[in-house]
Amino acid sequence: MGMWSLDRVDTPALVVDLDTVERNLHRVHRQAQEAGLALWPHTKTHKAPWLARRQLELGARGLTVAKLGEAEVLRDAGLGPFLVHYPLVGETKARRLADLLATGAQVQVALDSPQAADTVAEGARQAGAEVGVLVEVDTGMHRVGVAPGPQVVELSRYVHRRPGLRFLGLTSYAGHVSAAPDEEGRRQVLRQEREILQRMRHELERQGLTPQVVSVGGTHHAARMEELAGVATHLRPGTYVYNDRTILLAGSCREDDLAASVLVTVVSRHDRWAVVDGGSKAFSSDAHREGGYGLVMGRPKLRLTRLSEEHGILEWEDGAEPPRLGERLRIVPNHICTVVNLFDRAWAVRGEEVERVFAVSARGKSQ
Amino acid sequence: MGMWSLDRVDTPALVVDLDTVERNLHRVHRQAQEAGLALWPHTKTHKAPWLARRQLELGARGLTVAKLGEAEVLRDAGLGPFLVHYPLVGETKARRLADLLATGAQVQVALDSPQAADTVAEGARQAGAEVGVLVEVDTGMHRVGVAPGPQVVELSRYVHRRPGLRFLGLTSYAGHVSAAPDEEGRRQVLRQEREILQRMRHELERQGLTPQVVSVGGTHHAARMEELAGVATHLRPGTYVYNDRTILLAGSCREDDLAASVLVTVVSRHDRWAVVDGGSKAFSSDAHREGGYGLVMGRPKLRLTRLSEEHGILEWEDGAEPPRLGERLRIVPNHICTVVNLFDRAWAVRGEEVERVFAVSARGKSQ
Repeated sequence: MGMWSLDRVDTPALVVDLDTVERNLHRVHRQAQEAGLALWPHTKTHKAPWLARRQLELGARGLTVAKLGEAEVLRDAGLGPFLVHYPLVGETKARRLADLLATGAQVQVALDSPQAADTVAEGARQAGAEVGVLVEVDTGMHRVGVAPGPQVVELSRYVHRRPGLRFLGLTSYAGHVSAAPDEEGRRQVLRQEREILQRMRHELERQGLTPQVVSVGGTHHAARMEELAGVATHLRPGTYVYNDRTILLAGSCREDDLAASVLVTVVSRHDRWAVVDGGSKAFSSDAHREGGYGLVMGRPKLRLTRLSEEHGILEWEDGAEPPRLGERLRIVPNHICTVVNLFDRAWAVRGEEVERVFAVSARGKSQ
Repeated sequence: MGMWSLDRVDTPALVVDLDTVERNLHRVHRQAQEAGLALWPHTKTHKAPWLARRQLELGARGLTVAKLGEAEVLRDAGLGPFLVHYPLVGETKARRLADLLATGAQVQVALDSPQAADTVAEGARQAGAEVGVLVEVDTGMHRVGVAPGPQVVELSRYVHRRPGLRFLGLTSYAGHVSAAPDEEGRRQVLRQEREILQRMRHELERQGLTPQVVSVGGTHHAARMEELAGVATHLRPGTYVYNDRTILLAGSCREDDLAASVLVTVVSRHDRWAVVDGGSKAFSSDAHREGGYGLVMGRPKLRLTRLSEEHGILEWEDGAEPPRLGERLRIVPNHICTVVNLFDRAWAVRGEEVERVFAVSARGKSQ
């Protein structure tokens, strides 16, 4: 194959630096192994079977997904087992879970209500299979999860007694860690989560329902594994494969660990601003409390300050070299997960050379 | 074909009410005809060939797109002519424009720099074709567009003299109309735009470069056509086909005109909030200054207050009937254009019956 420079790739385009991805995978997987944590990476970030396979090759025990459609895509690539970390509720979900199980997929599910347990049990019944269940505890994010207290024991017992279900343990996602104002705040969120999970585990043990699994997310956790010691057995980071501006600004990766960016062209130039050909349909509208929508690689004085659908507005500090009309820039977005979900394919590079193109096969699988 | 109720559709799903779409199309197309405005609807909202065809059947003179990839999809469906309302800059764009022209597509382009004119002229040269050009004027949005003044005449003359290009006239998108605080503010934006375009038109006439076309956007304009009289000849509304919460809150449509929504299921229920199975990967993160991410149809006291990737948080006023676990709700998003771009297909309904499913064929065509 000849050399194929990134210069020939049309814009906007999702660009993935392969050397950085490999470094990110090796680092986090090694650290998890050293900490004795079973890694179940969340595949919602990359939505790409070849990366899920690489995660398994590098020691991941299974693959986390949010939606059944994501598991279906990975199953089609011969991958598994899966943790569906999302409450499945209703007949259509029971049917689709049954279809997934019927193809031999090994599936665990996280849930927070008897109704979700009933849905999962119905899917297991239809397929003649058994599904491992993690009971999700609300450790402060106030999204899904049972409030810590007797209800956790009640739901665990409900699951334990339900035919088709196997109670595996507890899970939590303290996603509010990324909203903490500083490093002390972030560590406080993780410690509170640990304290709650420890308490719930003891309570379950007292009731004879010893959890084998205590699972926590995510990339902020992965960067602070020492805070998980003694309680967590499983870890579900997603963003660590690529990282993004939000992860960087929270101190959960270094600038060298940023593996994905959006390649754009400057298409309009004005005295005090320029326009690039990526807007909210390329960067998503995910904001950051520090303002701005991305980090312009190699041009720290340029700021992506405003987005409309297909336009991104770049502004610059006095004295900065302004972008030139036609110039191509790589911009690391605030939140890579929603950005990846906008692109059908990604351009995988080493340096400035394209090594290959890969499909974001589970893009849009929101069901 | 049997009856197929929306109850059987898995969630989250994009739902389009066909009767409302037809009403929206008929109303705006009739008003444009009465006002003597040539309609070139912006297809970025629906990204669906069958809807573009319907717009042409109902009198549209051509189809506006932001990106060449969108035109390619519509061309493949046998549709056209096109206005690419986006500055094309660089070799890859010239090549792709040439490929589009070579298949017989009639293409006009809006642009705001000599470099973009050179790109378009190069594409025309490669295809042996001619491209009509609208010079874009910045009428206050400060995104793309030449600042009103002598540069508008200069660029128009540059286009006029360039082989392969035909100078057609002026264009503007006063998108900041949606940021105006009230109706008086919105009308002021439109009047300022009209005043600037009138001035530029007179200036061009004085120089012997009479514009045949003066084109303006969008759905807020379409709802106030009386403000365009005497200057605009062409109108490019996009969102009017579906409308959304932003259009509604700006008084640019009525609640009865909301044609698209996201069908979701309540998957987790708590004392003071509930969780639906659509987050920023279903609603986009496009915010509204009044807060909230959507309008829950038939349940005005429920508010979609927070989004994470796959979770939407519903809260409610005291005394409101809270959503039930497993309940299915239809939620009209803040901004339908970015939402449509997240879904591969839409479920077209009459009432609660699914009439058909259609592909969002130009989804993700951001190049």
